[in-house]
Formats: sequence, structure tokens, C-alpha cells
Amino acid sequence: METTKNRTVFKYDGNALIEQVDEVASEYPFTIVLNGQEFATLVCTPTHLKEMAIGFLTSEGVIRFPEEIVSVTLNEERGFAYVETTNKQPTSLEFYAKRFIGSCCGKSRQSFYFHNDVKTAKTVMSRNQITVDQCFYLMELLQQSSTHFQTTGGVHNAALCSKNEIIISCTDIGRHNTLDKIFGYWMQNRIHLHDKVIVFSGRISSEVLLKVAKIGVGILISKSAPTDLALEMAEELGITIIGFVRGRKMNVYTHPERIV
Amino acid sequence: METTKNRTVFKYDGNALIEQVDEVASEYPFTIVLNGQEFATLVCTPTHLKEMAIGFLTSEGVIRFPEEIVSVTLNEERGFAYVETTNKQPTSLEFYAKRFIGSCCGKSRQSFYFHNDVKTAKTVMSRNQITVDQCFYLMELLQQSSTHFQTTGGVHNAALCSKNEIIISCTDIGRHNTLDKIFGYWMQNRIHLHDKVIVFSGRISSEVLLKVAKIGVGILISKSAPTDLALEMAEELGITIIGFVRGRKMNVYTHPERIV
Repeated sequence: METTKNRTVFKYDGNALIEQVDEVASEYPFTIVLNGQEFATLVCTPTHLKEMAIGFLTSEGVIRFPEEIVSVTLNEERGFAYVETTNKQPTSLEFYAKRFIGSCCGKSRQSFYFHNDVKTAKTVMSRNQITVDQCFYLMELLQQSSTHFQTTGGVHNAALCSKNEIIISCTDIGRHNTLDKIFGYWMQNRIHLHDKVIVFSGRISSEVLLKVAKIGVGILISKSAPTDLALEMAEELGITIIGFVRGRKMNVYTHPERIV
Repeated sequence: METTKNRTVFKYDGNALIEQVDEVASEYPFTIVLNGQEFATLVCTPTHLKEMAIGFLTSEGVIRFPEEIVSVTLNEERGFAYVETTNKQPTSLEFYAKRFIGSCCGKSRQSFYFHNDVKTAKTVMSRNQITVDQCFYLMELLQQSSTHFQTTGGVHNAALCSKNEIIISCTDIGRHNTLDKIFGYWMQNRIHLHDKVIVFSGRISSEVLLKVAKIGVGILISKSAPTDLALEMAEELGITIIGFVRGRKMNVYTHPERIV
């Protein structure tokens, strides 16, 4: 499906408004129907839609293992994914988004505020290490792979990488969706993650951090800034956060032992 | 409450990793309890919390008029807002987020995919006009007002403006929250909107556009890019979108009749 659309715009160039055709990012309403019941509607860039559906449900804690997926059927024209799983218990997104109060498994209230996160966010034990130069190189690869962003200025990118190449790169108008697409890819392919890295174009919020923890990757490299809550969670969950990777500069925020 | 926190980071300056103290944006879990029932938990920057709670509920279509608000009580330490309204019907966020299928009020499925949007997004009839120079000036004011962003690199800003000054400027780690805070401010102050403008730091998705339509402002100025769906909605709802306002350049995407 088309990820951009041509539109007529009036560009002001310092003197006058000039009519021109410009490319803008597509935004696609996408409804996930789980075992016959509408589960959620999200908006996304219409690429990697199967990965999007699986990744979203996995990230929400609804699917835990690939074996639970019976089928995923897409109706691209209508914007629907029909997912059948072995576990037919009625579920609603509402339950998953209920705030989690109280402590559990030694994890603090402050860091885990949703039910599903308590169940699914895991501490990453990987001893993977990366050099400063590899960080810069991977960020460069991400930016080269994302011509879409350069054209429209309106999308984010995330890539699952080894230390010297991109395994899969996902684009989306939503920061979180890029990571769900990677999660969905991983659920279908189950490659080893202990030596992998996620490279990301967006800001690192707690939600972004939790998605990385759920996927189970120990190093997150971003062009942008993290929040305090994301850093607290990263400390606790054993994830190395490298932010503000721009030119030949970067900040290592947590678990610097993975940088050599 | 604190909107940033000091953290120790390791900065790579081109030669070595140097330990330094740096400021990062705070991210605050905030639960809205509506008439004794947990309605939603969001994460936000802990400023304008009363506006955040009211604006979120208004944007979701739960509150329609200021007279419906009986009380708003904050427990800042625990991160809760307790909102009492005159309308005690049981509500759940799930219903509001259910996808809307079929046409209604002549609005197309593609443009309106959630129940509450069909009810609350209104066409803006304002004949407000603005000059190119005023657009540049207001964007400059927004950027000057947001020292927070300059320090942490991690937050967005939205401001409700007249043609030559900021009325209220809201900061948040979430793009959408900045607009909800403005909506909440407006519900409490009900100033005339026909000659007002919203200036925004973030990308214009359909959700952003719908919030602006619900507030009822006819001109949206952003530093960033819009999506195709946001532009379709803007056409339909009578909103002028000006994007990519950077330096002395800008793009007018929809309803250029408001630019003089």
C-alpha cells in the first residue's frame, strides 16, 4: 500500500506562496479483531501490517508465544486484521490498560503502572557489548534506510540490528508502532536477541522502553532524548540507553558497562 | 512539581566518555478517576494537571460543557485526579475508542473512525485571517517560551494565541497532551476562539487535527509535517494547516483563504 500521498501545497519561499505538489506521509486506521471481537483501532503507516497486528497484541500481553497464533488475515482495503489465537478467553484492552497499583515481584509502583507490563517486561541479562563507532555507524545506517523520513518529514524509524547491519527496519508515523512491527517480526522469526541492538529515531518514553524490554534487547540507541521514567525502568530492567546520537556525539544514560 | 530531573550521564565528545550531570524530562503517570471509577491512565509532564484531566475528558467526549464539571481534586503525590460530573452514566474508555463504521452526518468513514469524534469534532466556521509574518512571529514566540525543550530536548509545546501574543502555552512529553491541556484551560476560561490560533511543535496526525477541531480553532501552525489523513480531515472541518514553519519558510496545506 502507498506510504505517502501527493498533495498540492502552497510553499512560502521568503517572497510569495507558490503552488507545488508535495509528498505527505499516509496515516491508515487499522482495527485489530481478536477471536471475532474488536480489540483496538490504531493509526499507522500501512507497511508490515501483519507484524503490526502480531506485535501490538504481543506488546499488550495478549499473545505470549508464537504457538498461540492460529491465523492472521488482513483486509487491507478496509483496514482490518483478524487474528485467531488458541487462547479464547475474552479480553479487552481496558483491562490491559488498567493502572497497576501496589508492588509485585519486587518491582516498584512508579516503574510499572500497567497490569500487562508487570507480566511481560523482562529484565535483560545479555552481556552484549558495542563500541562507540558501531553506535554511530548503526545510526547512520538507519538514517540512510529511511528515505521516507527525508521526503515527508513525518515518520519514525526503528531497526533491529546486529553490530554491523540492519536485520529489519520499520517505518511508521507512530513511534510506538515501529517497535511493535519489530516485535511482530521477531515473533514470526525468533532470531537470537542476546547480541542484537535496536536503533530508533524517536524520543525514549517509558512506553518505548517497556516495548524494548518486552522484545528483550539490551541496547537501545536513539537520536533523541529519554525521559526520567524511561531511565529508571532501564536501570531496573538492565537496558543500556544511548541517546542524542548526532554527528560524532552521544550520551550514555544507563548500563554503560555495555559500551567498549 | 518538577518537570525535569538531574541525571548522571556519560557524554561522548568525540574522544572519550565523560561523566556529567544532565537534565532529562520528567514523565509522570496520571490516572483519571471519573465519578469513582478508574477511567484512564496516561503519562504526562506534571504541569497544568487540572487542565490535563478536564481536557482529556472533554477531548474524549465524556464532558461536553463546563457546567457538567462538579469538582476536580488532585492527589499530585499519588498521580491521581478525581473528577465528579453531573452525568453519572457509567462510561468506559473502551466504548469511546471503538471504531466507528459506516457514515453519519455526511462524514465519511475514512475521516472519522472513533465514536466520540463523530459526536464532538465540529466544523470551524471562523473567518479569522493571519499574515505570513504573524505565523513566523508566533512560532518564534512558542520557541522562546519553551526553554524546557531547549534544555532537555524531550518535550512538545502547544500555545493558544491571539495574532500577536501567547494566551497560554503548555508543555508535555506527549504531543497530544499539550493540546488536551489547552482544551482544559479553555473549558475553565471560555474565551472567544474565532480569532485565535494554535501554534504547535509536533507533527500533525489525525488525532492532533481532531483535537484542534474539538477545541474549535481554525488555524493550526506547526514546525513539523502533517499526515494525509490529518489534511483530509482539515479540508472537511474547515481548518487551515500551516506546516514546516522553519526560519522564513512555511507550507500552507489546507484552506489557504485564511492567509493574507
